[in-house]
Amino acid sequence: MNEPMLIHSVYFWFKPDAAPAVVQDFEAGLRRLTSISEVQQAHFGKPAATPKRDVIDDSYAWGLVAVFADLEAHDRYQDHPLHQDFLRDFAASWQQVRVYDVSV
Amino acid sequence: MNEPMLIHSVYFWFKPDAAPAVVQDFEAGLRRLTSISEVQQAHFGKPAATPKRDVIDDSYAWGLVAVFADLEAHDRYQDHPLHQDFLRDFAASWQQVRVYDVSV
Repeated sequence: MNEPMLIHSVYFWFKPDAAPAVVQDFEAGLRRLTSISEVQQAHFGKPAATPKRDVIDDSYAWGLVAVFADLEAHDRYQDHPLHQDFLRDFAASWQQVRVYDVSV
Repeated sequence: MNEPMLIHSVYFWFKPDAAPAVVQDFEAGLRRLTSISEVQQAHFGKPAATPKRDVIDDSYAWGLVAVFADLEAHDRYQDHPLHQDFLRDFAASWQQVRVYDVSV
């Protein structure tokens, strides 16, 4: 992976009143996202039990790290029907979403 | 990579008065970090030019995404002399650091 790439990291916080069924289905929703062909590599999970430090934000519910070949692949992913389905199914349940797109 | 892993993402902001020589050397500092043997995979870079959205934070100077086999490997990395050198050389120049450790 020495070619230019984009690492797209997303952290999700649920609303306190998010429906349990939606929260329950979220992992499966993330898994469906990672099947989008533009995704070269992806991992998702919950905050790790690293020793607490002031700089660590472990308040999110789920984190997703996805790797794309380039900006265009990322943009196609955003527009992909599976990504649109994900937004339709889950976005209303999010308190906050934070995205970091790093060009590496 | 189906084994449990930890993805350690770090975003760095420099103080407005950080010494230009320190800022200049930061990329080399990140590269030295990624040579630590516990790092399975690592990439670093600057904010990508993805379309602006409210959820995107592109205000950081550099981002680092490093993959570790497990929590213990991450903890050894934190204690590694090269990581300690990195903190000694750069930490005083940071306005802010934000870390997300995701267990995947």
